[in-house]
Amino acid sequence: MADEVKLYAAAPSPYVFRAKLALSIKGVKFEYINEDLGNKSAELLKYNPVHKKVPVLVHNGNAISESLVIVEYIDEVWKGVPILPQDPYEKAIARFWAKFIDDKCIPTAFKAFGSNGDEQVVTEAREQLQILENELKVKGTKFFGGDNINLVDIAGSVIAYWVGIFQDATGLELITKEKFPKITVWAEDFVNLEVVNQALPPREDLVAFFKKMFGKA
Amino acid sequence: MADEVKLYAAAPSPYVFRAKLALSIKGVKFEYINEDLGNKSAELLKYNPVHKKVPVLVHNGNAISESLVIVEYIDEVWKGVPILPQDPYEKAIARFWAKFIDDKCIPTAFKAFGSNGDEQVVTEAREQLQILENELKVKGTKFFGGDNINLVDIAGSVIAYWVGIFQDATGLELITKEKFPKITVWAEDFVNLEVVNQALPPREDLVAFFKKMFGKA
Repeated sequence: MADEVKLYAAAPSPYVFRAKLALSIKGVKFEYINEDLGNKSAELLKYNPVHKKVPVLVHNGNAISESLVIVEYIDEVWKGVPILPQDPYEKAIARFWAKFIDDKCIPTAFKAFGSNGDEQVVTEAREQLQILENELKVKGTKFFGGDNINLVDIAGSVIAYWVGIFQDATGLELITKEKFPKITVWAEDFVNLEVVNQALPPREDLVAFFKKMFGKA
Repeated sequence: MADEVKLYAAAPSPYVFRAKLALSIKGVKFEYINEDLGNKSAELLKYNPVHKKVPVLVHNGNAISESLVIVEYIDEVWKGVPILPQDPYEKAIARFWAKFIDDKCIPTAFKAFGSNGDEQVVTEAREQLQILENELKVKGTKFFGGDNINLVDIAGSVIAYWVGIFQDATGLELITKEKFPKITVWAEDFVNLEVVNQALPPREDLVAFFKKMFGKA
């Protein structure tokens, strides 16, 4: 039986993108099901009754939610280009940084973009990003994964691509080349990867979407 | 070379307990290093410079932070009794529920215990616990892991043991047998397991600690 793979999605979501990118890296064919988040489908509510959110991956009828859980699942099920390191310690470190991005970088950055430039809130977001900047500096590699992207780079796609869009949408320059040189170069390298580039949603659409979301439209 | 395993710990922490329990399940001998959280050691700050928190597991010099990351590491490195399911889908489901406990149940419960019984805050915590109650009901098994405990039960130890202590410390009856019959039976079964019971910190010490923390001492 051929695999049936469906991704319940919404283009503006950086969390959806993680799952989409992981499937692309593995070369998995899948059906992309675009959800209207203002009027969610009965399938989405059935498959993710707890959070009622995208992304949901449905593989041969089995539904999985939570973007990083989905990415780990994809990595375990489909061989080929690995997404997590094989060594247990390296794997733990990758999980640590992916969690750091989710728990610290994203919430503080979102708060900053919604804050109308409140200095304290912006400083807090930059403090978290500085920790990521330092990690890239200490590693000295092109990506968090080394020469190739791994779970951390995929988790970080929200910083590599979406943050620039949030900046355009709100006018807040959270990340500049001067303040975060390593993150800036890493983000360019990441976005320029063919597998990433081909999976990214168009920039203009996202700017328009987030202008509305952050109340600047 | 024999493995050198150290756990930087503090007895009241339910997060530390996860790591301690995982090591106990695997029968790993380790050095338990009790941290004074008011005066953290130079080693702890060196090993966990990002969060400066316990638990930190140091295995042959390699330091790992974040309790669930530590538990997954322990499961991968030491064979024997498995903590995560082997099947990728079952594994994803376990990760989903462990994350649900961390992202939803624990923050809302903590807020409730610190709220002096604010009805809205207590209701919010009970709504999250109800989702866990339903999951136990649907599964119909003794533990989240089936006949044996898995990652979800270990993550849930804060609910199985600590919530009762928070209740004694604050006087708020968040979980009752009437409201949450499945969680109540599961918690009793969990705490009564020999491997769990022998690893738990003494109840009276914790009640005293959390009375102070929640301002009731």
